[in-house]
Amino acid sequence: MPAVAYVNGRYGPIAEAGVSVEDRGFQFADSLYEVVAVLNGRFLDWEKHLWRLRRGLSALFIEGLPSDAALAHIARRLVGLSRYADGLLYIQVSRGAGRRDHPFPSDTPATLVLTMRRFDFRQRLPQLETGVPAISVPDQRWARCDLKTTGLLPAVLAKQEARAAGAFEALFVKDGTVTEGGSTNIYMVTADGVIVTHPLSARILPGIARDTLLDLAREAQMKVEERPFTIEEARAAPELFLTSTTAPILPIVRLDGGAVGTGRPGPVTARLGQLAWAEIGRQTGWKP
Amino acid sequence: MPAVAYVNGRYGPIAEAGVSVEDRGFQFADSLYEVVAVLNGRFLDWEKHLWRLRRGLSALFIEGLPSDAALAHIARRLVGLSRYADGLLYIQVSRGAGRRDHPFPSDTPATLVLTMRRFDFRQRLPQLETGVPAISVPDQRWARCDLKTTGLLPAVLAKQEARAAGAFEALFVKDGTVTEGGSTNIYMVTADGVIVTHPLSARILPGIARDTLLDLAREAQMKVEERPFTIEEARAAPELFLTSTTAPILPIVRLDGGAVGTGRPGPVTARLGQLAWAEIGRQTGWKP
Repeated sequence: MPAVAYVNGRYGPIAEAGVSVEDRGFQFADSLYEVVAVLNGRFLDWEKHLWRLRRGLSALFIEGLPSDAALAHIARRLVGLSRYADGLLYIQVSRGAGRRDHPFPSDTPATLVLTMRRFDFRQRLPQLETGVPAISVPDQRWARCDLKTTGLLPAVLAKQEARAAGAFEALFVKDGTVTEGGSTNIYMVTADGVIVTHPLSARILPGIARDTLLDLAREAQMKVEERPFTIEEARAAPELFLTSTTAPILPIVRLDGGAVGTGRPGPVTARLGQLAWAEIGRQTGWKP
Repeated sequence: MPAVAYVNGRYGPIAEAGVSVEDRGFQFADSLYEVVAVLNGRFLDWEKHLWRLRRGLSALFIEGLPSDAALAHIARRLVGLSRYADGLLYIQVSRGAGRRDHPFPSDTPATLVLTMRRFDFRQRLPQLETGVPAISVPDQRWARCDLKTTGLLPAVLAKQEARAAGAFEALFVKDGTVTEGGSTNIYMVTADGVIVTHPLSARILPGIARDTLLDLAREAQMKVEERPFTIEEARAAPELFLTSTTAPILPIVRLDGGAVGTGRPGPVTARLGQLAWAEIGRQTGWKP
């Protein structure tokens, strides 16, 4: 079976998987999601993703997610059905389906959707060598960007603008500071070699790849500062990079058309790239 | 047939109507909607709703909505199937379904969903006599509230908070000013009898009921000012009221637990209520 889906107890081809037109995920973006990297048939940072999902559901008062063990069982079965060793496991939980009305419905079970699609992580390795271009856009999002909700239209528009400009990512700028990317966390490296990224707050998503990368950097005795930085600092920085589930680390070598540093990936990013992929190999046994 | 739905060419019971789990409305809130009042089998302000929908689709570069005549045909057929004379016609258009990726997919047809559910507008008449309570909440929404997107989680949370407080509506407060309600436009009446409401901008939805009401007020030689007003002005105002498709006009008689004016509906709101319901009767022939 190619791409597959699970919807509230049923497994099948993704093309046949549906939710009600009155699902609150469809009508209200009243839902949360996670994207988990599957490499070599194993889940990368599975516990961290579940922790973040449960934290978000709790904040939104969405109940009824199965136990961690039950979720792992569903996820493993789905990956097995797909027969893909490498891919993206997508998990979405909505507040369920019911007659359209803004307040929470009573006695409506949550909707649980998982999908598994193939994804080739090897495409990131040449990008790690060459780097990718980015643009900056105003951060027009709501006040709770720490919640991984499906209210993603601002990110859709930002990433579409990036693609139209030939760029890989759009950096959100709020009050002059770089918060994060359309679907990534963003970092600069200062002239002193310090890795700087926006601190955890309601303005950014607590990225799983971010968490892992900062741990790796600190273990390697590299200097890390979690503080807001301006778009001007970013433009002047010798190195910029991004992290996400689908791009564990990528150098940003152009910003709004201008070169970042030398216009080629820098040494700090290269070192972090080695650490990040070594950690992925350690967790999953994955080899390019 | 009770509640019914139309999804991309198919009519049927709403309980059987679904969209793909990879519909961009479900995964990205990459979609827009309208709610049209159906009274006496007729659509209230049909052309205005279609105009607003097309304006939003154009802003988001979502293409492929059928012609006005085709939409009217679908809507009329759906209402006929439902056999309801009074109800709410819901229209949602998403950018379609496809492999999950933020930027716009190519060659993916838009998803068009319509539903028709019964709604008894008579419930608004006693509420017009008694008024309803409201609370105020911080406006945490994104920067494009003029677009009627399905990214409604902030409104869901606000209206849930209102319900938990025993209130009918939550007033969004941004930078000290009342922008609009969770699903309504908000107005105050000054001591001089001037009707004041937030001007059209990216901070509020250009409400259809708002448009109609302001026209009616001006035709009746009542004074209207479209300007931001503060939550303190609202608290001190002798009258507050709201408008929406499902509540053409309702007095707000309590705000955050305190009485508005005398705590009973005021004369300006009462006068506007007569005008609004007379206009509904004129357009649709509806009688309570």
